[in-house]
Amino acid sequence: MSYFRPAIDAMTGYVPGEQPKPGTKIIKLNTNENPYPPSPDALNILRNLDSEWLRRYPDPFAREFCAAVSEALGVPADWIIVGNGSDDVLNVLVRACAEGGDRKVVYPMPTYVLYRTLAAMQPAEVVEVPYPQDFTLPIDDLVAANGAITFIASPNSPSGHSVPLDDLRTLARRVAGIVAIDEAYVDFAESSALPLVQEFENVIVLRTLSKGYSLAGLRMGFAVAHPKLLAGLFKVKDSYNIDAIATLVGAAAMRDQAYKNACAEKVKISRAKLTVDLKNLGFTVLDSQGNFVLATPPEGNAEQLYLGLKERGILVRYFKQPGLDNKLRISVGTDEQNQTLIEALVSLLK
Amino acid sequence: MSYFRPAIDAMTGYVPGEQPKPGTKIIKLNTNENPYPPSPDALNILRNLDSEWLRRYPDPFAREFCAAVSEALGVPADWIIVGNGSDDVLNVLVRACAEGGDRKVVYPMPTYVLYRTLAAMQPAEVVEVPYPQDFTLPIDDLVAANGAITFIASPNSPSGHSVPLDDLRTLARRVAGIVAIDEAYVDFAESSALPLVQEFENVIVLRTLSKGYSLAGLRMGFAVAHPKLLAGLFKVKDSYNIDAIATLVGAAAMRDQAYKNACAEKVKISRAKLTVDLKNLGFTVLDSQGNFVLATPPEGNAEQLYLGLKERGILVRYFKQPGLDNKLRISVGTDEQNQTLIEALVSLLK
Repeated sequence: MSYFRPAIDAMTGYVPGEQPKPGTKIIKLNTNENPYPPSPDALNILRNLDSEWLRRYPDPFAREFCAAVSEALGVPADWIIVGNGSDDVLNVLVRACAEGGDRKVVYPMPTYVLYRTLAAMQPAEVVEVPYPQDFTLPIDDLVAANGAITFIASPNSPSGHSVPLDDLRTLARRVAGIVAIDEAYVDFAESSALPLVQEFENVIVLRTLSKGYSLAGLRMGFAVAHPKLLAGLFKVKDSYNIDAIATLVGAAAMRDQAYKNACAEKVKISRAKLTVDLKNLGFTVLDSQGNFVLATPPEGNAEQLYLGLKERGILVRYFKQPGLDNKLRISVGTDEQNQTLIEALVSLLK
Repeated sequence: MSYFRPAIDAMTGYVPGEQPKPGTKIIKLNTNENPYPPSPDALNILRNLDSEWLRRYPDPFAREFCAAVSEALGVPADWIIVGNGSDDVLNVLVRACAEGGDRKVVYPMPTYVLYRTLAAMQPAEVVEVPYPQDFTLPIDDLVAANGAITFIASPNSPSGHSVPLDDLRTLARRVAGIVAIDEAYVDFAESSALPLVQEFENVIVLRTLSKGYSLAGLRMGFAVAHPKLLAGLFKVKDSYNIDAIATLVGAAAMRDQAYKNACAEKVKISRAKLTVDLKNLGFTVLDSQGNFVLATPPEGNAEQLYLGLKERGILVRYFKQPGLDNKLRISVGTDEQNQTLIEALVSLLK
């Protein structure tokens, strides 16, 4: 007998993007980090933390952080569940709700690959509904797939498009299961689906501090939903999933909305410029609502470009999978980083 | 249809010990925190952390921390898996290995209640084998239960006893599944089962920084096992389960073994004194290898004493369950805290 469950033996683990050490001489545009540092208020909390917070167990509900979210987003504190990154909340959601062929995991493709990994380890049957060319949400097919959870990333990665609120509303009305709207990139977008949680008991909206708040290294995410939906998730969540530092530093970052918004504005301006520059080099570039762009190089040589850039000390993301293997996903860096990228591409495309 | 899987609807969540805010005027002897602060080296790392560590994703394998563990414990770095607290590793282990009636979770009772919770959410059948009065390991019954995982906490909570190495060795030889030795309290004990991982491919030893290293608020734990066993666990582990701060602060704490050992020595001396003082008040107290004692009050009024102490600003742990509901589990505090506890008990027992 194997040490492991058949589902585990059968699956391959999720492969995260490359994470070279800080200090490594590299322009890192592969995992959609924010190019600007976190809020000075958040850093200030970190530097002055009372060691008593480390010695003792953290608050299982991260109430200090929930209070800050409640204030910033105008949602009741008991409508919030906090995770060790939003990946943790995704994990809890799948573990609480999905199972076998009767409780399926459904999502449009391409999207965040982790949904598939989490379903595989449950295991739960997966239905992947292809997005059409124009990235209109394939509502009928998603509804027909009858998921216990339907994941919609909006803005979506790697495409960068946002799903219109009305489409999400229609979906939420027509499915019996949970609609999980993954808003990891919402801080760079024009709109949010957050109002839907008050219209629909079956909608949960997930957020992270990894992108907009420049805190990928802290591991802090959360979700907002009706307390009835959260009740099942709280049973599965590890009691002490959020450490005391993340609770306090995350709360300070959440309270500094002005700083976060100012950084996001800079990224959006840089995104527009990067899009134009790439198009001028012959790339096809989708309009993006995230802090990245999905770009198809003029001669379909995406993998060579990825390797060529890496050789020049620039990391971008290349997905070796059907539909994506002729594209690059490029995080929006500072204008200086983006300029270096463009110059490297000019020389590689010669 | 419920939003949740039947196993989740059927289970109750794990109820952690009370965690009042730091700064609350209370003597907290209920969740086995170390009464002494973390290593000054660890705090120093925290206070001077480069914000770049926060902006970027952490190392999925927490290699900096693994290197420190490898050095401190003399185990190869690739024999280590790191968790967001050892609870995270327990969770990963159950998710990777246990399922239904064919892949059971087995453990002697009483022990850490989380094993049961994790099995319930899988779900996996549980076999609980009662410890005899003298806490000899019931090897035959554990073997007969044929677990995919057999959990042995050593030192065990709440009893405080350590399981002899030879008993663990016999168990590991006789079962086909995994023997998970939970050494959360090992820093206060006279011996460790760590050598067994090199004798047996099916043994995994779990450790935490929450107790010996005074870092319960940081969420940092790890396990040591043969890479073949770790391979399946790495598939289930969240890529970014360990934040960048915990990786670096934890590594510094791990490198400061001298400080940890000095604090543990103080706790052990206080534990001996507390045991004598409780016995003098008529309590029956088991010899403990942890940083807590399990004490039976003279007149079986454990719940009233728990409430009376709470009223006086002293939190201890009371488990309302058969076999434990006439006892109190008391964390070893500083000598001053323990003295205050004893005085409160004197007045309550009058």
